[in-house]
Amino acid sequence: MVESRGHSEFGKSELGNLVIVRHGESVWNQENRFTGWKDVALSEKGRIEAQKGGKALRERHFEFDLVYTSVLKRAIHTMDIVLEEIDQVWLPISKEWRLNERHYGNLQGLDKSETAALHGEDQVKIWRRSYDVGPPLMPTSDPRHPGQDPRYKKVPREVLPSGESLKDTVARFLPLWTERIAVDLQAGLKVLIVAHGNSLRALIQHLEGLTPAEIMEVNMPTGIPLAYKLDKNMKVLGKNFIGDPEDVKKAIESVAAQGKAKSK
Amino acid sequence: MVESRGHSEFGKSELGNLVIVRHGESVWNQENRFTGWKDVALSEKGRIEAQKGGKALRERHFEFDLVYTSVLKRAIHTMDIVLEEIDQVWLPISKEWRLNERHYGNLQGLDKSETAALHGEDQVKIWRRSYDVGPPLMPTSDPRHPGQDPRYKKVPREVLPSGESLKDTVARFLPLWTERIAVDLQAGLKVLIVAHGNSLRALIQHLEGLTPAEIMEVNMPTGIPLAYKLDKNMKVLGKNFIGDPEDVKKAIESVAAQGKAKSK
Repeated sequence: MVESRGHSEFGKSELGNLVIVRHGESVWNQENRFTGWKDVALSEKGRIEAQKGGKALRERHFEFDLVYTSVLKRAIHTMDIVLEEIDQVWLPISKEWRLNERHYGNLQGLDKSETAALHGEDQVKIWRRSYDVGPPLMPTSDPRHPGQDPRYKKVPREVLPSGESLKDTVARFLPLWTERIAVDLQAGLKVLIVAHGNSLRALIQHLEGLTPAEIMEVNMPTGIPLAYKLDKNMKVLGKNFIGDPEDVKKAIESVAAQGKAKSK
Repeated sequence: MVESRGHSEFGKSELGNLVIVRHGESVWNQENRFTGWKDVALSEKGRIEAQKGGKALRERHFEFDLVYTSVLKRAIHTMDIVLEEIDQVWLPISKEWRLNERHYGNLQGLDKSETAALHGEDQVKIWRRSYDVGPPLMPTSDPRHPGQDPRYKKVPREVLPSGESLKDTVARFLPLWTERIAVDLQAGLKVLIVAHGNSLRALIQHLEGLTPAEIMEVNMPTGIPLAYKLDKNMKVLGKNFIGDPEDVKKAIESVAAQGKAKSK
């Protein structure tokens, strides 16, 4: 898990300067579909996960200067719920497509068994487990393609993905980190990021210097904030999950178990 | 009312390029207290007003490029509800203190009868009816003063109000209009503004070239979007309230009745 590089917890009385939260369950997660850039709402369980995460931050008196999230409503609504819980709805917000979930290309909308029927179990395993093998691309003429969606109209066509490997997701996330988020952190601002499983993997890989094999074993738990303490050079001095100790323990264990299953 | 300058409605099939919405009832509006910059939540009625406004925009297929609101949650939540209804939660948002409600100085938190008991009925009438007479100032040492609130920490101390006349509210609103919102509109963007009774009066006075006496007669109805069609020089070509015809008619009548009562 994210412990793999041996970053120790930092003082419980300190809050760190970067907190990341993965959105809770969406209505497509329930159905086990490849969601990607499809703009699916949180499930009721997902809303409750977000509330718990927000409450955990409130109990520790977290205060932020600004918030980054994606342009997908499951992340935006998670952020709204967290800001409500910590009573900081006035915070400036940047909604950034570079924090979107990995784009699953033409797999978007398919569930596991549909995908296996179409492409075979072995191919599905390769897509799920590999760092740099992308899914079949979504045609740019597809009405689901981001080039057809007004929310991306200011994004240059040539950088809009039609399908991404995790490596591709890392590559399109990095300019946002380098040019904006790291600059804010270096200026001494406290930053909250609410995003998705794979865009947060991109962040964690970069921040912790993980190899492709290592980051594939990392699964951020949903709705449990992870606080980092970073120095001015963006070196990780420590990290803490924030929440009820039982929830944190379960999250870490479940993540470790996933890792084991995968490496079989 | 806003009709006073005789701007006619524009074509019902056109949508205009600027839509303004006044937040619905807050829990302090219910109690008839001077709210000002106190960060009070919407009442249940206020949430329903926001939903109706959002639905009216959805039925007319309004689409925006960006949204401006204040740093007060009754406006932010109204905006959230409207964006949810029109399914555009991904829109970029600017939360601006210059769109806050008029700052009521040391009257903040008092209800009408408390204010009359403290300052006399005649003085209260002067404060309510005059354009340029400000309330008693809130001391900067008061824990309620914006200088003590982290949300204003980036605002230069010398521009943070301790109490405002409507004239003062207009003056602090105008830089936001000139430097940001008008620039967006001139660039061809479609703008939604969700704000407060007096910050929207500031906007309307400027946009429609109303005199102080005229703007004092204007009361934006809550939760009923007002769409403007502006040319590149920010000249008003027309305006339409957006909503159920009965609601729009009632809103216009109630506003006119308030105007009559006041001019007695």
